[in-house]
Amino acid sequence: MIFSSDNWAGAHPRIAESLVKAAGGFAAAYGTSDLDKKVEGLFSELFEREVAVFFVGTGTAANSLAFASVSKPGGHVFCHREAHVNADECNAPEFFSLGARMAAVDGAFGKMDAGKLAAEIGRFTPGVVHSGQPMAITLTQATEAGTVYTLTEIEAVSTIARRHRLPLHMDGARFANALVALDTTPAEMTWKRGVDILSFGATKNGCWCAEALVFFDPAMAEGFPYLRKRSAQLFSKTRFVSAQLEAYFEGGLWLDMARHANAMAARLAEGLKGSNSARLGWAADANELFVIIERSRAKALMDQGAVFYDWHPPRDMAHEIGPDEGMYRLVTSFATQPDDVDRFLSAL
Amino acid sequence: MIFSSDNWAGAHPRIAESLVKAAGGFAAAYGTSDLDKKVEGLFSELFEREVAVFFVGTGTAANSLAFASVSKPGGHVFCHREAHVNADECNAPEFFSLGARMAAVDGAFGKMDAGKLAAEIGRFTPGVVHSGQPMAITLTQATEAGTVYTLTEIEAVSTIARRHRLPLHMDGARFANALVALDTTPAEMTWKRGVDILSFGATKNGCWCAEALVFFDPAMAEGFPYLRKRSAQLFSKTRFVSAQLEAYFEGGLWLDMARHANAMAARLAEGLKGSNSARLGWAADANELFVIIERSRAKALMDQGAVFYDWHPPRDMAHEIGPDEGMYRLVTSFATQPDDVDRFLSAL
Amino acid sequence: MIFSSDNWAGAHPRIAESLVKAAGGFAAAYGTSDLDKKVEGLFSELFEREVAVFFVGTGTAANSLAFASVSKPGGHVFCHREAHVNADECNAPEFFSLGARMAAVDGAFGKMDAGKLAAEIGRFTPGVVHSGQPMAITLTQATEAGTVYTLTEIEAVSTIARRHRLPLHMDGARFANALVALDTTPAEMTWKRGVDILSFGATKNGCWCAEALVFFDPAMAEGFPYLRKRSAQLFSKTRFVSAQLEAYFEGGLWLDMARHANAMAARLAEGLKGSNSARLGWAADANELFVIIERSRAKALMDQGAVFYDWHPPRDMAHEIGPDEGMYRLVTSFATQPDDVDRFLSAL
Amino acid sequence: MIFSSDNWAGAHPRIAESLVKAAGGFAAAYGTSDLDKKVEGLFSELFEREVAVFFVGTGTAANSLAFASVSKPGGHVFCHREAHVNADECNAPEFFSLGARMAAVDGAFGKMDAGKLAAEIGRFTPGVVHSGQPMAITLTQATEAGTVYTLTEIEAVSTIARRHRLPLHMDGARFANALVALDTTPAEMTWKRGVDILSFGATKNGCWCAEALVFFDPAMAEGFPYLRKRSAQLFSKTRFVSAQLEAYFEGGLWLDMARHANAMAARLAEGLKGSNSARLGWAADANELFVIIERSRAKALMDQGAVFYDWHPPRDMAHEIGPDEGMYRLVTSFATQPDDVDRFLSAL
Repeated sequence: MIFSSDNWAGAHPRIAESLVKAAGGFAAAYGTSDLDKKVEGLFSELFEREVAVFFVGTGTAANSLAFASVSKPGGHVFCHREAHVNADECNAPEFFSLGARMAAVDGAFGKMDAGKLAAEIGRFTPGVVHSGQPMAITLTQATEAGTVYTLTEIEAVSTIARRHRLPLHMDGARFANALVALDTTPAEMTWKRGVDILSFGATKNGCWCAEALVFFDPAMAEGFPYLRKRSAQLFSKTRFVSAQLEAYFEGGLWLDMARHANAMAARLAEGLKGSNSARLGWAADANELFVIIERSRAKALMDQGAVFYDWHPPRDMAHEIGPDEGMYRLVTSFATQPDDVDRFLSAL
Repeated sequence: MIFSSDNWAGAHPRIAESLVKAAGGFAAAYGTSDLDKKVEGLFSELFEREVAVFFVGTGTAANSLAFASVSKPGGHVFCHREAHVNADECNAPEFFSLGARMAAVDGAFGKMDAGKLAAEIGRFTPGVVHSGQPMAITLTQATEAGTVYTLTEIEAVSTIARRHRLPLHMDGARFANALVALDTTPAEMTWKRGVDILSFGATKNGCWCAEALVFFDPAMAEGFPYLRKRSAQLFSKTRFVSAQLEAYFEGGLWLDMARHANAMAARLAEGLKGSNSARLGWAADANELFVIIERSRAKALMDQGAVFYDWHPPRDMAHEIGPDEGMYRLVTSFATQPDDVDRFLSAL
Repeated sequence: MIFSSDNWAGAHPRIAESLVKAAGGFAAAYGTSDLDKKVEGLFSELFEREVAVFFVGTGTAANSLAFASVSKPGGHVFCHREAHVNADECNAPEFFSLGARMAAVDGAFGKMDAGKLAAEIGRFTPGVVHSGQPMAITLTQATEAGTVYTLTEIEAVSTIARRHRLPLHMDGARFANALVALDTTPAEMTWKRGVDILSFGATKNGCWCAEALVFFDPAMAEGFPYLRKRSAQLFSKTRFVSAQLEAYFEGGLWLDMARHANAMAARLAEGLKGSNSARLGWAADANELFVIIERSRAKALMDQGAVFYDWHPPRDMAHEIGPDEGMYRLVTSFATQPDDVDRFLSAL
Repeated sequence: MIFSSDNWAGAHPRIAESLVKAAGGFAAAYGTSDLDKKVEGLFSELFEREVAVFFVGTGTAANSLAFASVSKPGGHVFCHREAHVNADECNAPEFFSLGARMAAVDGAFGKMDAGKLAAEIGRFTPGVVHSGQPMAITLTQATEAGTVYTLTEIEAVSTIARRHRLPLHMDGARFANALVALDTTPAEMTWKRGVDILSFGATKNGCWCAEALVFFDPAMAEGFPYLRKRSAQLFSKTRFVSAQLEAYFEGGLWLDMARHANAMAARLAEGLKGSNSARLGWAADANELFVIIERSRAKALMDQGAVFYDWHPPRDMAHEIGPDEGMYRLVTSFATQPDDVDRFLSAL
């Protein structure tokens, strides 16, 4: 009954086997091996256009280097208040982009409100150096609230980005979960909707360590190889990432894993409907549920071995939570078993 | 006949298998799993004292964060001119340590000359801000020239470090190769000789991606967890590093691999003795040879499938190389086969 | 009728004359001249203890280097939402402190609410690296809203700082205006109330360019000379700052100028009481007034030559401003003449 | 007998008077006053083309921000080994340009040897990220050795810059001294010879604090206003710089002061010719002399009140200095009196 995070799962057996297979023989280092080139090609195929792909070590690195690559002095990156870059990356985005500021935008259920976003950007006057300048917009897909921006919602954000000539970044730490939730294609969910740079995360969805930064316009990535190396994010034996990703994409494994994770969340959500002691904070689209449970009952569940985290409810939800209640986050993954879900529901 | 670099090798089968074994089940993320704790314990055992260990993604990250952790404005890090931090890390050490300068010290065969080191440090006057200030000393073990500092030589450097109250860092990208070359213990080669911080590299010696920063005085690492996270170097599924290192240490696999790599280099060196067309630039101690070969013959070898790199000879060697000759680097690894060596020698 | 900002005024004649007097002869550079030492001594006298004083070029530099001097990875500096460091320094504080974040705290009339401050700090859990860590608290005295923290209010903030072992910084860009408003001593308003570091601004109060960073515990400033030089803030002919400050302190000129500026603001406030077309947003303590005026009338005033700025009302004031009204900031200085005030009031 | 540095002099009386004159009345802040605009215009006139000019606080700031404005990850700035940016700025250039490295190039008498410069740049291979990349070339005019690059020599450097598409920066801390030494025009010595960015220093030549960064192609300065503000280098009462520069340029005062300083150095050099106890290290072109004196005699001079600094001879001069001799630097300025020079010569 592990619902703490999708990064508590290990790696899918096919991913692990791929590493065994790739372990033998020699191959060029620093991203130049045949396997590296092959996997780069897979990205271009997947996104239906030539893209520039760079492996990095962590999702935080992917996000931070995305911002660093478009950095401006006094820059502001507009993001949702609960976004990972704002709440969970220990100022790495600020550090790598030389003090750019994460400018928090509110919005229900983890999604930036387009009107508020436009208003925040509109507060800046070009040439007035004191307040700094807009630098980028980032949206998280799936969001930290377990919701997924619809294609229309992404477009609403990218319209604002275009109007202000700002690059649009997508934090896709849970890219696959969002993709299968929308039942769309990678191209449709990204550059066809105006996304310029994508943090493509595979770690949370069944890899050991496989994060990539994808530039949809390779010209934007000119100079990026130096930036990555200077940021200490260039692996030597890059085929260990490529081998994971080769298996990840092979036969649609990545989509199957994401569908499974989402289905397990849906099963959990369905089960909660009948519960008297717990209720969903809001409808989830992907593999994270935010559940309101009586504190004493939550504690009892934990004592029975369920693992999940206490969560700060977003500001606009706080009033819906009773004095004896708490909000808890439950995350499913490729490794979650239906039985885990059912045992949790029974225990509840 | 791959002698380009030890990072062209993949991973040892036992390391790959360990990843398969660790892939199942759930485990706490961000360095808090049982396996992570176990491997941290192995480091303390290995070094015969309680140490603070932090996994990072690359050797460049380990070195850069070591300097960042002892950073001072206007700081100078004294290193050998050919050191990796000075020659091959795209200014990452400067970036993470906010503009600290790599202050190159000369010395034969990749080792800093203690007298020159002392002279370089002696050029700074405390309180004279214009020229900046000494911040750290770093030595590479084994060196970029394939040599190994003797314990006495390390002590000569650490004596200077102590005199100036400077932390002493060791870049151990090829730590195991040096260790078995000296036939000594990890403790003897590090803190017992005055080393404060170690970049412990396992990637080049048979892992996929396993680099750690080791602080021999855990008090020096206070605050480091934030520095690592801020630097985007905190993996989520840390057990993928731990699983590699568990197998790496198990039954002395790491020492066996290093001994094998060194032995292959020795076999190559031995074979070169009889050659008319190639000669060693200098005696190697570990798994890298620097060989002077006629350029035309080197090209012929490459045409026959041998892979190795053209190398800039160090300044003080340049005069020993004839107009038609070049200097080439040959690196062996755990994966080098005796047959590879012999075929290379025959081809030569 | 110039009420745009106190930095639109030039320099007091006695300050200008002091520069003429100091221009002749030779003197040691980089802060080592007799005059520099004399003025440093004046600071210690003024604050009734030995302090470490460092001249820098701008108020932004003083604030940014204060934070840089206590920087921690992932650090958060708690400040009022409207604070200059948060709203008007183009991310310089973030840049110099390597990505530290300005953590906005709300509070009426430009002062941080102590309860909200404590709550914001309380959201951090030591050791949880993801969210970063508290690093410092800064308060602005006088505030950007023209108000002044009482000694008791400063103590309320410093009590929180002490509890969390955080250094307390005061942005004293308008230090003198606050001081005379409270009719207290420099010592009482700073270190006796728990302030650790002070940005001492004299530029806005009649100097050309005279900003200093004051450490009340000189031990905290160890290493700061290198930090200042590395930050390009060490002037060579430092006596040009010292000469300004010598005249500034001489005979209490600085207090006289601040009293005059405050009196001019009070005269303006008094005059507004009888007005039908304008009213104070709130009571001012120092030399800045925030006035609600009908937009058409404000425009008419500007057309008549009055210079003052349109201002974004703070969030909690917005509802008090009518649809045809605007909020405007009026700042007085040592150079403001009673006649200017009276003409403005008549014109209104 | 003050020959320690030109920054030991104060300000020229006409500069001081200009500050008195400008002190009254109100003027827009942050570089927008009429006087600021007028002085900006003077720069364009002076350089015979439209230039973008930015005042900053120190020469170190000007140099560092020049590099920051053309910064690249892993960047190398090629400079003479003895250049101020390399030897005397406490790593500020590295800090502001995010770890760019000052790549020292040798050359006699303070001037980069064009051949060695080309060779150093030639060591980099585009796309090989490990070693970083060339980013800029900087030359110091007049040099730290008191010499002056001829126009032909500047062109030799700029030809290399153009070939590698590198911006060429000139550190003009002693711009006026070089200009009058060459008896040429500002335009001829800069952009007409291929210089892209100039640190224009006036402080050492009779101002209090007047340093500017000049971009000869204003398009290169797009975004620079934010960079300057983010770097805490935007003064509020900018007219205090403008007022200095207005007087500086008025009637050619700046050239007169530089001519005087150079003439004083020449008088000193002439007087040394007849001396048995001192000799010039090399011929000086501007206002700095490097003199070899017996150590005991130098001490005696200091005891008699002469102030000048002990200097590290450049590497290629070291052998010319006897065991009992030292190398000393003597700097003249607008404030040096013929009598000072003569008294020094007599004392010698």
